[in-house]
Amino acid sequence: MKNQILGIVFLFSLVYTNAQEAIHSETIETIYSEALTKGKAYDWLDHLSNNIGGRLSGSLNAERAVQWGKDELNEISLDRVFLQDVMVPKWVRGTFEYASIITGPGRSMNVPVCSLGGSIATPSAGLLAKVVEVKDFDELDALGEEKVKGKFVFYNRAMPVGLINTFEAYSKTVNQRSRGAAMAARLGAVGVIVRSMNLRLDDFPHTGAMNYGDLPNKLRIPAAAISTNGAQLLSSMLSLNDNLDFYLKQDCKNFPDVPSHNVVGEIKGSDFPEEIIVVGGHLDSWDLGDGAHDDGAGIVQSMEVLRLFKSMNYQPNRTIRVVLYMNEENGLRGGKAYANYAKSNKENHIFALESDSGGFSPRGFVFEANTSQFEQISSWKSYFEPYLANHFQLGGSGADIGPLRNGKTVLSGLRPDSQRYFDYHHAANDTFDAINKRELELGAAAMASLVYLVDQYGF
Amino acid sequence: MKNQILGIVFLFSLVYTNAQEAIHSETIETIYSEALTKGKAYDWLDHLSNNIGGRLSGSLNAERAVQWGKDELNEISLDRVFLQDVMVPKWVRGTFEYASIITGPGRSMNVPVCSLGGSIATPSAGLLAKVVEVKDFDELDALGEEKVKGKFVFYNRAMPVGLINTFEAYSKTVNQRSRGAAMAARLGAVGVIVRSMNLRLDDFPHTGAMNYGDLPNKLRIPAAAISTNGAQLLSSMLSLNDNLDFYLKQDCKNFPDVPSHNVVGEIKGSDFPEEIIVVGGHLDSWDLGDGAHDDGAGIVQSMEVLRLFKSMNYQPNRTIRVVLYMNEENGLRGGKAYANYAKSNKENHIFALESDSGGFSPRGFVFEANTSQFEQISSWKSYFEPYLANHFQLGGSGADIGPLRNGKTVLSGLRPDSQRYFDYHHAANDTFDAINKRELELGAAAMASLVYLVDQYGF
Repeated sequence: MKNQILGIVFLFSLVYTNAQEAIHSETIETIYSEALTKGKAYDWLDHLSNNIGGRLSGSLNAERAVQWGKDELNEISLDRVFLQDVMVPKWVRGTFEYASIITGPGRSMNVPVCSLGGSIATPSAGLLAKVVEVKDFDELDALGEEKVKGKFVFYNRAMPVGLINTFEAYSKTVNQRSRGAAMAARLGAVGVIVRSMNLRLDDFPHTGAMNYGDLPNKLRIPAAAISTNGAQLLSSMLSLNDNLDFYLKQDCKNFPDVPSHNVVGEIKGSDFPEEIIVVGGHLDSWDLGDGAHDDGAGIVQSMEVLRLFKSMNYQPNRTIRVVLYMNEENGLRGGKAYANYAKSNKENHIFALESDSGGFSPRGFVFEANTSQFEQISSWKSYFEPYLANHFQLGGSGADIGPLRNGKTVLSGLRPDSQRYFDYHHAANDTFDAINKRELELGAAAMASLVYLVDQYGF
Repeated sequence: MKNQILGIVFLFSLVYTNAQEAIHSETIETIYSEALTKGKAYDWLDHLSNNIGGRLSGSLNAERAVQWGKDELNEISLDRVFLQDVMVPKWVRGTFEYASIITGPGRSMNVPVCSLGGSIATPSAGLLAKVVEVKDFDELDALGEEKVKGKFVFYNRAMPVGLINTFEAYSKTVNQRSRGAAMAARLGAVGVIVRSMNLRLDDFPHTGAMNYGDLPNKLRIPAAAISTNGAQLLSSMLSLNDNLDFYLKQDCKNFPDVPSHNVVGEIKGSDFPEEIIVVGGHLDSWDLGDGAHDDGAGIVQSMEVLRLFKSMNYQPNRTIRVVLYMNEENGLRGGKAYANYAKSNKENHIFALESDSGGFSPRGFVFEANTSQFEQISSWKSYFEPYLANHFQLGGSGADIGPLRNGKTVLSGLRPDSQRYFDYHHAANDTFDAINKRELELGAAAMASLVYLVDQYGF
């Protein structure tokens, strides 16, 4: 008798599980269909990219983007939309950035450069000096003050093209951009020229954040990125004549912090409103392009997750929140401020998802989770198979949600195909025309599907 | 004692298997590294696209491509390179294709059109007629001769955007292009205008093959593609005034068949030279763009498979052959001729692989195989996981290798990400600049890895 009851319970739970799985599959199918046929992500990104444009923290455009984000979130009838105050750094590129290789008396070749974010200006007449080329800090240190003093340090370590994941290639080279100036200044360099973080050869210089660490103001030196073609040229010219002169002029400037905002919107959960699922990207961008991939895509995909639920009349069990973080690029103030807000309000974030790897075809997700959490997540992989977004692995999630890391909250990042990302990253060609509508929408659908499953099961 | 021996045999085979797997993983790693760091695919495609360009069957460019393919294969020191004669259809676009919507006396709007491959010309003064819009052949038949006679039939069935695999969306709409004219001519239509097979809205008309079936010459009517934006406009105008006139003029022409060639190259196998593994794409392309994705990518990836083996000093066990098929687009004569050649020489093809889905990031492969063959193939999936090219499934492989289908030979197609393919397919923007170097190279590496495994194990 007992066995019979157990058998019936087992059968019932089997039937129940199958029925649930069928419901989830169907819901996810609806999410994808809605995103691809009636999605708003692409139109939103068109506006953000083309009508607002590049939106560096502290700029007027960044505040226009804040207002736009708030208005659009209000438009889709969320339960709550609000701005969170946050002070952000303000760096302005200025009106002039120019460089040339001086190959002889009256002979020079212009090369495409741009100031690195956070850099100081050159003297107003520009900076003329010899160049010493290095691949990394070890080479720099081996040269020592004697061979560096009074010169430009030219960091020319290329992103390794043999790696499959381009973000890995980025992580292996980005320190020459972020810390190169501080390292070279210690040895008396007058400026640094940094090879752009770009896997292909082209004429776009790629900007990005650099900082001087604790280097005193009077020791700081200007830092500029040079396009990959420019770097190849400069290196060739140096191999012919290592005594050539390089000229750099830029008038960028750092200002005191200014007020800005995170934009937050939410749908209140019905059953467990105190359990919060947050999805987001960063609203600020660099100023050379219009930040369509970095991170306009993540912004509109995150907004689309909530819009999809609203348009499908899906009432979540848990509270679903979208955060458009301010200042990921050069300060992470928005991410930090949001985590502080969550902490000081004793909020329980069970899951945070970020999209900040470009609007390309989604391949899956990366997770920061413990073993049992990742086991649960992995059991959902099959739902993503029909959409080829089922590559799940453990690893670093996203910068803006990093400050939420507490060992309990599961953090996750959307992982689109990474091959083309660094063709555009931080460069003037990171523009709306480099976005494929369907790829963008598939990313939003994958995110909404994952958020749906977390909402259904919790952790 | 017996158990101990069995145990030792088991352990040995385990160690052997693990050692083999390590060797395969290492070889595949080398393949990827070589393709990404020293690959020739991208340079080859640059030449084929930019120095030769569009290469429609029967054109001078197609023969230039044949010569180029032969020369390049000779350059990499294969054991044998030869041309295979094949007669191909010759259709010439002519110098003029023009269409406009006549909205009133003296008022007209030009719309972007192009002749469909195989279509006849309009009368030299062009064709002016009313338009009837349909979505499919059922709608057409329901209208009947009375409402169709003397008019243009405008096929306006859009590719369904809700499907994940865009090739599936293509297969659901392409019959209006291939058979639309024949179907409409039966009912007395004077011409057909076909919405381009394109998932996005833009101004590029997409050409492609059409045929009249057994329709007598005197009943044949001209067929043109209209861009998706043009189709939207025409449909809107018709909804305002279904009595408007449409004007089409084109001077394309069919000629008798002309001689052309498949290009074949091979590396002789050391152990089983009579077992042939063939890899290929099609050398012909449409004439509007330069055929970089369709199928220049497949051509250079296939050539790269053999070049990689040569440069790695890998001596295959089986014979590895590359075929640059002629005339996939409008006749498939090359594929048929090659299969005939294989059959009449009693060759044993164990595996045929085609790349003809664009040079995008590879997601995996599709296979035509029996259960035990597919089981064996599936056991190799893990080798492709680190490269995210491990989506293996059963399904149709490729047009050119289709004629090799015999129930024994395993057929396979590279499956790149399909989202962007129909943005370019058969249109003027299918050009080299739409190719990402890394994505192209990753496809070649995935193909070489699969061919390597087949060469190691056979079927």
